[in-house]
Amino acid sequence: MELDTGLIYAYASEFLKEDLGRGDVTTQAVVRSGAKARGSFLAKQDLILCGLEFGEAVFAVLDGGIQLESRAHDGEVLKAGAQFARLEASASVLLAGERTALNLIQRMSAIATLTRSFVDRIAGTKAQIIDTRKTTPGLRLIEKYAVTVGGGRNNRSGLDDGVLIKDNHVAMAGGIRRAVELARVNASHLMRIEVEVSTPAGAQEAVKAGADIVMLDNMKVADLNESVRLIRGLSSSTLIEASGRVTVDNVREIAETGVDLISVGAITHSATAVDISMKITPL
Amino acid sequence: MELDTGLIYAYASEFLKEDLGRGDVTTQAVVRSGAKARGSFLAKQDLILCGLEFGEAVFAVLDGGIQLESRAHDGEVLKAGAQFARLEASASVLLAGERTALNLIQRMSAIATLTRSFVDRIAGTKAQIIDTRKTTPGLRLIEKYAVTVGGGRNNRSGLDDGVLIKDNHVAMAGGIRRAVELARVNASHLMRIEVEVSTPAGAQEAVKAGADIVMLDNMKVADLNESVRLIRGLSSSTLIEASGRVTVDNVREIAETGVDLISVGAITHSATAVDISMKITPL
Amino acid sequence: MELDTGLIYAYASEFLKEDLGRGDVTTQAVVRSGAKARGSFLAKQDLILCGLEFGEAVFAVLDGGIQLESRAHDGEVLKAGAQFARLEASASVLLAGERTALNLIQRMSAIATLTRSFVDRIAGTKAQIIDTRKTTPGLRLIEKYAVTVGGGRNNRSGLDDGVLIKDNHVAMAGGIRRAVELARVNASHLMRIEVEVSTPAGAQEAVKAGADIVMLDNMKVADLNESVRLIRGLSSSTLIEASGRVTVDNVREIAETGVDLISVGAITHSATAVDISMKITPL
Amino acid sequence: MELDTGLIYAYASEFLKEDLGRGDVTTQAVVRSGAKARGSFLAKQDLILCGLEFGEAVFAVLDGGIQLESRAHDGEVLKAGAQFARLEASASVLLAGERTALNLIQRMSAIATLTRSFVDRIAGTKAQIIDTRKTTPGLRLIEKYAVTVGGGRNNRSGLDDGVLIKDNHVAMAGGIRRAVELARVNASHLMRIEVEVSTPAGAQEAVKAGADIVMLDNMKVADLNESVRLIRGLSSSTLIEASGRVTVDNVREIAETGVDLISVGAITHSATAVDISMKITPL
Amino acid sequence: MELDTGLIYAYASEFLKEDLGRGDVTTQAVVRSGAKARGSFLAKQDLILCGLEFGEAVFAVLDGGIQLESRAHDGEVLKAGAQFARLEASASVLLAGERTALNLIQRMSAIATLTRSFVDRIAGTKAQIIDTRKTTPGLRLIEKYAVTVGGGRNNRSGLDDGVLIKDNHVAMAGGIRRAVELARVNASHLMRIEVEVSTPAGAQEAVKAGADIVMLDNMKVADLNESVRLIRGLSSSTLIEASGRVTVDNVREIAETGVDLISVGAITHSATAVDISMKITPL
Amino acid sequence: MELDTGLIYAYASEFLKEDLGRGDVTTQAVVRSGAKARGSFLAKQDLILCGLEFGEAVFAVLDGGIQLESRAHDGEVLKAGAQFARLEASASVLLAGERTALNLIQRMSAIATLTRSFVDRIAGTKAQIIDTRKTTPGLRLIEKYAVTVGGGRNNRSGLDDGVLIKDNHVAMAGGIRRAVELARVNASHLMRIEVEVSTPAGAQEAVKAGADIVMLDNMKVADLNESVRLIRGLSSSTLIEASGRVTVDNVREIAETGVDLISVGAITHSATAVDISMKITPL
Repeated sequence: MELDTGLIYAYASEFLKEDLGRGDVTTQAVVRSGAKARGSFLAKQDLILCGLEFGEAVFAVLDGGIQLESRAHDGEVLKAGAQFARLEASASVLLAGERTALNLIQRMSAIATLTRSFVDRIAGTKAQIIDTRKTTPGLRLIEKYAVTVGGGRNNRSGLDDGVLIKDNHVAMAGGIRRAVELARVNASHLMRIEVEVSTPAGAQEAVKAGADIVMLDNMKVADLNESVRLIRGLSSSTLIEASGRVTVDNVREIAETGVDLISVGAITHSATAVDISMKITPL
Repeated sequence: MELDTGLIYAYASEFLKEDLGRGDVTTQAVVRSGAKARGSFLAKQDLILCGLEFGEAVFAVLDGGIQLESRAHDGEVLKAGAQFARLEASASVLLAGERTALNLIQRMSAIATLTRSFVDRIAGTKAQIIDTRKTTPGLRLIEKYAVTVGGGRNNRSGLDDGVLIKDNHVAMAGGIRRAVELARVNASHLMRIEVEVSTPAGAQEAVKAGADIVMLDNMKVADLNESVRLIRGLSSSTLIEASGRVTVDNVREIAETGVDLISVGAITHSATAVDISMKITPL
Repeated sequence: MELDTGLIYAYASEFLKEDLGRGDVTTQAVVRSGAKARGSFLAKQDLILCGLEFGEAVFAVLDGGIQLESRAHDGEVLKAGAQFARLEASASVLLAGERTALNLIQRMSAIATLTRSFVDRIAGTKAQIIDTRKTTPGLRLIEKYAVTVGGGRNNRSGLDDGVLIKDNHVAMAGGIRRAVELARVNASHLMRIEVEVSTPAGAQEAVKAGADIVMLDNMKVADLNESVRLIRGLSSSTLIEASGRVTVDNVREIAETGVDLISVGAITHSATAVDISMKITPL
Repeated sequence: MELDTGLIYAYASEFLKEDLGRGDVTTQAVVRSGAKARGSFLAKQDLILCGLEFGEAVFAVLDGGIQLESRAHDGEVLKAGAQFARLEASASVLLAGERTALNLIQRMSAIATLTRSFVDRIAGTKAQIIDTRKTTPGLRLIEKYAVTVGGGRNNRSGLDDGVLIKDNHVAMAGGIRRAVELARVNASHLMRIEVEVSTPAGAQEAVKAGADIVMLDNMKVADLNESVRLIRGLSSSTLIEASGRVTVDNVREIAETGVDLISVGAITHSATAVDISMKITPL
Repeated sequence: MELDTGLIYAYASEFLKEDLGRGDVTTQAVVRSGAKARGSFLAKQDLILCGLEFGEAVFAVLDGGIQLESRAHDGEVLKAGAQFARLEASASVLLAGERTALNLIQRMSAIATLTRSFVDRIAGTKAQIIDTRKTTPGLRLIEKYAVTVGGGRNNRSGLDDGVLIKDNHVAMAGGIRRAVELARVNASHLMRIEVEVSTPAGAQEAVKAGADIVMLDNMKVADLNESVRLIRGLSSSTLIEASGRVTVDNVREIAETGVDLISVGAITHSATAVDISMKITPL
Repeated sequence: MELDTGLIYAYASEFLKEDLGRGDVTTQAVVRSGAKARGSFLAKQDLILCGLEFGEAVFAVLDGGIQLESRAHDGEVLKAGAQFARLEASASVLLAGERTALNLIQRMSAIATLTRSFVDRIAGTKAQIIDTRKTTPGLRLIEKYAVTVGGGRNNRSGLDDGVLIKDNHVAMAGGIRRAVELARVNASHLMRIEVEVSTPAGAQEAVKAGADIVMLDNMKVADLNESVRLIRGLSSSTLIEASGRVTVDNVREIAETGVDLISVGAITHSATAVDISMKITPL
């Protein structure tokens, strides 16, 4: 996944405005106008780096000419203590942008790092880790980018770019078969049809009705195995997704059932900031 | 802290747009236009509820007439299993707003719940829990509101509404004394002057230079005790804040040193979504 | 396809602003403030009506309380002379909104009417008329709605909600097979993969590579027939689309080749305004 | 008429966003990142070129450094087969901007080409072709620019920059004379006063009441002749406009009645896209 | 001149946001939530009232249900001490909106009051007072509305809705005659052509070249008289405007030269706030 | 106070749009496209210059490459006749930006000049001139910048960045003591607490209740003296502000009472445009 540069700057500008308000009153009072300094970014724990371009954009919004000297790239494994970027600028620019840049890089790296821990656990299986729509409001695209940096793949970006018939839709439509048939008639011909089911029998019904993807929701491993067996007995091409309460501890067991995709809400809704700091040195 | 209703609706509308994109293609394909349903919100763990008004706003943006029937209020302790709100609407409105409403309430309640756990730990001391600027980009005001719902107090909302001289400012100004003097001359007469120090000697210097608030950063308990003693020897009115790597485990010990304020980044940057669901029943 | 009411009002408001600028100087100078009038909308040719809600929104933006009394609905066949809606309001509101409302309804009805003429021609075949991205800049969603009102179906809304490998992509990827393989690995698992080909051999290659949809571009009828035969020999489920220089005169012949979908750029890029007027009578 | 460069980029950016949504998923999946290509624009029919700057802006929004090598300019007559511009860029930029650029240039050139066909027909008379407010919602300024490129002149840009008393105003004011008198008292002293009339007697009344411009609406040629005679008998400086159901076939006859201006709605509301393509070659 | 209600609310909302920032911290700290109060607006000097709707809009933006009980209307003469409006609301709404409402009404009434003083001075002559583009940036439409409330008339709203050839244009075009001729060929047929001249000879040249309006800039009374005589000798319909350093003291003398229009920059650029207060009483 | 460059350009762009509307129709009609000219800015009265960067931004928005050659800087004393800046550009750019640039510089210089006249009067005392929130709606930050250029200091930028308990708050809270106590408990610990009082007794009560700043509102000089005496008897660090009907004539007398701050509404709400012109010479 690639994020558009214009979008990155738009985010950086909006987030800076949130923090700056009418201006950095402390720096205006205390720091000599024109004083120069160097800022150095340090990883203070092991992590997967993510968000460098956002960090650069924050300072570039404040001072058009600025460029980060980066010593690492998004997706790289950093050890605690690694200096991964630095920049020289007026001290007032460094002080104004510091918190916004850190908040972004810390959250994005947290998601990439957490995603990678899931991806590493299922190495060697055919399964892939995918994200969910359980993202922080306003940060959907940023967080989905971080998922790909961590080695995951993306699921729907919104309600408009994928057909996913969930339990509530099934209830409203009056059954799995009826819901899938309606989707085949009415949904865009460009999209596959995915259905959420909670039992092996439901999985079977979904495939028979013509679902392209079946999501096995909150099933125990035994039921996952049974569902995979039933689905594969009907179709070799149907994609199978496991979902629900996936943790680093159970993800490998799930992957070994033979599912194609494992969706994990936690990689976005439960990532906690990694520890990164920015040190400022007068020049 | 109170959030303006207009602001709440603006957030709700922006976040909905992020999720809806060009529309909910699944529901348009599968659910009969005009079908009605009831949505019920359930706490699936113990938590402090926060964000009900945001939840209501999400659905009201989609359908002007809608109101939540709420059975709890922001700040209330909910037990796992509690139904705290419900609403009746067209199924398409419920399905379109569900994820956005949940994402908001889950994150806000997470912050309120985590804050409350810190607040409860220091009950009986004179210290207060305050937040930091380590918030999710774009959600600063929302997260600061959640902190107050959890019983915490707010620190700066941005770089513009408080004077906080940090280590980097001190380095640029050439010493604590010089930095405080500059702030007294140049900063707004309406604001107090806070200085971050990392040693008891620094604390003493700050008070002598006229600081109104001294932040003791990343000190061990022994140093906190010594700093409080030195500061109180000079002034009874100076506010004392402890900061840095505060956890639920060490917060009481810190509070008992006699500080007035304890700032905790984790209550915003490390809150992980609480478990809440919305059940939809056809009517 | 359904358009969100909020979106309709946003369009109406933007288009009104374009026409009103700083205000309707003629009406302010000539018409007594407070004078009431009735406006009646008349079809001056046979047409398929489309855009009534937009017409209502234009006047409602100017005067919150206003409602159209409609005597027809979107998709209805109107004969020349039919009065299809009327409203009572202050004359200044009618005069300010008249042109914007008419411009919208005239263009939307033009698209619906033209689409219907294609749809009618292929009645009885299994083919469906779909639109393209050859829409008026800024009006994509509005025009796609009009297509559905005329009985057509929608193709991609943008470059983000469908995978369509066109000749230029094939050239860049180095062949049809390679392009489809790349898409199967890299594109979202939620989307089908469509490929544009210009020869029967290309169609065969596309299906073998795993394309879900094959677009037969600018082929003569003989080649269409041959392509359909080859594709169906390999797969019964692959969707087949015909595209390129489709006219009312040749559309039936194309439909009879057995394709599933026929995309027609002309229904949006070459629709010319239908004749509709609004008569204003003083009350 | 000149369009502001900032405005052109604003339009290009808005229209690109409409087409790109969250990104070009096909190109991201299929085309190697960094691959370069050349795009060539070709006229596939005879036409008057219009919109080159918009085409350039679309690609420049995607990639700041890009410039079109243009081989023709707005207003130039192109023959079918002419290559009028080309550019080199990353393939992903060419593929992302292609449709938006074409949609703009095709519509603008269509309007310029159609306008020119009217202008050419009345060569040698003193009449001028002017446009109306029957433009595509959202594209008023763009379409009015295209009219001037085709040799036409502009009428009102909105309800605010010209006083035009139409039949509905006359009805509300209680007669032509009364309406003109009200306009002379109340309208801005900076604007001329134009009145729409439908009979020679009305034309006479308008001039006597002090109208600066008389619009003869939907009159037959005999009535146009009579109206021109009556108006010129009263005033040599009053401008005379003919309006209503003007076609390429009848425009010369109308011009020969001696009117100064002929307004034609069709040049904007009934222009259909000219045929232009963009060919992409890998580099 | 009438201002659109939507526009008034948009202004009120923008200006409130400027003053409120993140919220009224004093009232939130000091005033009991839910406390009700009455606010009364008082004129503390003689004045022409202007801006009541803006005042109401400020409070209505804060609390949708609120209405001012007004005891006077825009354009009314108020004596010092007059209570002209009051409203009941929550105290927090009154305190939040007070300053923004007062700032608007005080400036608008100042302009209306100053304009009226010029208008009164020329009572009985045929001249009219008109404004200029020397308005406060961002408040053009508001200030022009206030001018009409004070009995003046409006000049151009911007560079786009009137043709005024000033000395700088004449210099660039190479003479008055040439400039007027260019305007007659190139400018919109809907607009009159006004020329600024600084001598009686220039006035004569302008009329001969076909100017519809002649602005006599910065002339002494003798030259004004001579210019009026020369212009009227050539044309009875040309409008004559006097401009430049017009004061309340010399405006009557200027009006008596027989000019039609007198433009006065001071009514907008030199109006100083009238004294108005809002008294808040607990209920 | 420093204004962010991005903010300056945003203001310039917004104000230009207000004046330009759809474009400068006079210049387009009369001035040869491409003609170059020089613009020179002249002070036509003695003044303190303010707003040069805004003037530059206006032209730079119209033509990216442009720079003012400035011969003076903000805060400099200019004598009548001084040329303080010039620029070369296309005539159309100079003519389009002239009025907007002048309107800004004239108002900003007016405020700086008026502020300086107050500041000069109290030279040698310890008092400082501060502004109020009685600024022009929409121009708060610009006008507060101008105050600092004139040698004044800034008071609150909005209701959110300072705690000021006014008479209305006292009335709602039920007394000065109660209001201050509430503020000490509830307001941000980062802000000082200011209270408005109208009698010496009130001043005493405020200090006893713990106010950090006391504003003496509308007091006679005798009462100011008495209040200062009472306050200083209780506290040497409490800041004392005088406010209300301060004029150039009485400001020195007030300063000599020993107050620290004197707030003056007139420096913003009653500044009248200074006389500045821009002369354009063809090149």
